[in-house]
Amino acid sequence: VPALPQGYNFRRVGKEDFQDKNLFKTLSILTTVGDIPEPKFHALIDYWNDRKEIYNPMVITNAENVIIATGMLFVEHKLIHGGGKVGHVEDISVNPSEQGKKLGLIMIRNLIQIAQNEGCYKVILDCDEKNVKFYEKCGMKIEGVEMGYRF
Amino acid sequence: VPALPQGYNFRRVGKEDFQDKNLFKTLSILTTVGDIPEPKFHALIDYWNDRKEIYNPMVITNAENVIIATGMLFVEHKLIHGGGKVGHVEDISVNPSEQGKKLGLIMIRNLIQIAQNEGCYKVILDCDEKNVKFYEKCGMKIEGVEMGYRF
Ligand SMILES: CC(=O)N[C@@H]1[C@@H](O)[C@H](O)[C@@H](COP(=O)(O)O)O[C@@H]1O
Ligand SMILES: CC(=O)N[C@@H]1[C@@H](O)[C@H](O)[C@@H](COP(=O)(O)O)O[C@@H]1O
Repeated sequence: VPALPQGYNFRRVGKEDFQDKNLFKTLSILTTVGDIPEPKFHALIDYWNDRKEIYNPMVITNAENVIIATGMLFVEHKLIHGGGKVGHVEDISVNPSEQGKKLGLIMIRNLIQIAQNEGCYKVILDCDEKNVKFYEKCGMKIEGVEMGYRF
Repeated sequence: VPALPQGYNFRRVGKEDFQDKNLFKTLSILTTVGDIPEPKFHALIDYWNDRKEIYNPMVITNAENVIIATGMLFVEHKLIHGGGKVGHVEDISVNPSEQGKKLGLIMIRNLIQIAQNEGCYKVILDCDEKNVKFYEKCGMKIEGVEMGYRF
């Protein structure tokens, strides 16, 4: 895992992250965040914390303690591969104002590290065609096609 | 959801499915199943059952009560989309001896139904290029690229 710039931190999301809204701002670069009132946010953090062996919601903060990158690793227990585990990487977003600091790469390498510690046999994610090159730089390979059904 | 042939059933995986090994046989059409001793299998079933809001491991059995199709829906709680949920379809396998009965389609439509009941905003899965046509027949669309990292 490459090093973060001085003063930057990789850490788990917490209830205090509701206050400055930078978690929401960073995620809104990726997709629709929508309305999340404080009680709903706290309930989700509790839900994730009660299932730490599944949910690893992580962020990178800069020297001003502002969240500028997000990433989730969640761990699925399967029957295949001798009762193996798969790490799913989700909701990767990096603030464009922090480009050139390899924060996306550092986030992915940290999530892969968590998956390895959890004993996963692989890590997978779904992305746009335009992000394939970036994930290849992170050491990942094209494995298949993502199909979706929207309600 | 199209109807199953007479005597066929769609149901949740249970501990009793260790006995005849047909669950393992059906999954081994998809990929490596590996060695799963009975205590490990029972522990996984307990793990899944203790987390029923996340794990929906389902099978289709034929008129002889033999498992001939498998599929998992697991539900991820996100922050995006107003604290939305995503249904992940995994480990779809259908015994070739039962081809032409639309069991794959019925499995997928049933898993999508579970996801809708759980309030998911979308269902996604990863597949080989060669299965894209099948999933399109199930009402799904190409959404992106699956990238993977193997340990
Ligand atoms: C590697 C990565 O970050 N992939 C994300 C995925 O985690 C996220 O859930 C989705 C949201 O898209 P949606 O708003 O269209 O569901 O976008 C991307 O596929
Ligand atoms: C829709 C569907 O069934 N997709 C499956 C996935 O659920 C399964 O986990 C994987 C196993 O492949 P592996 O043995 O190479 O990890 O194969 C396919 O991608």
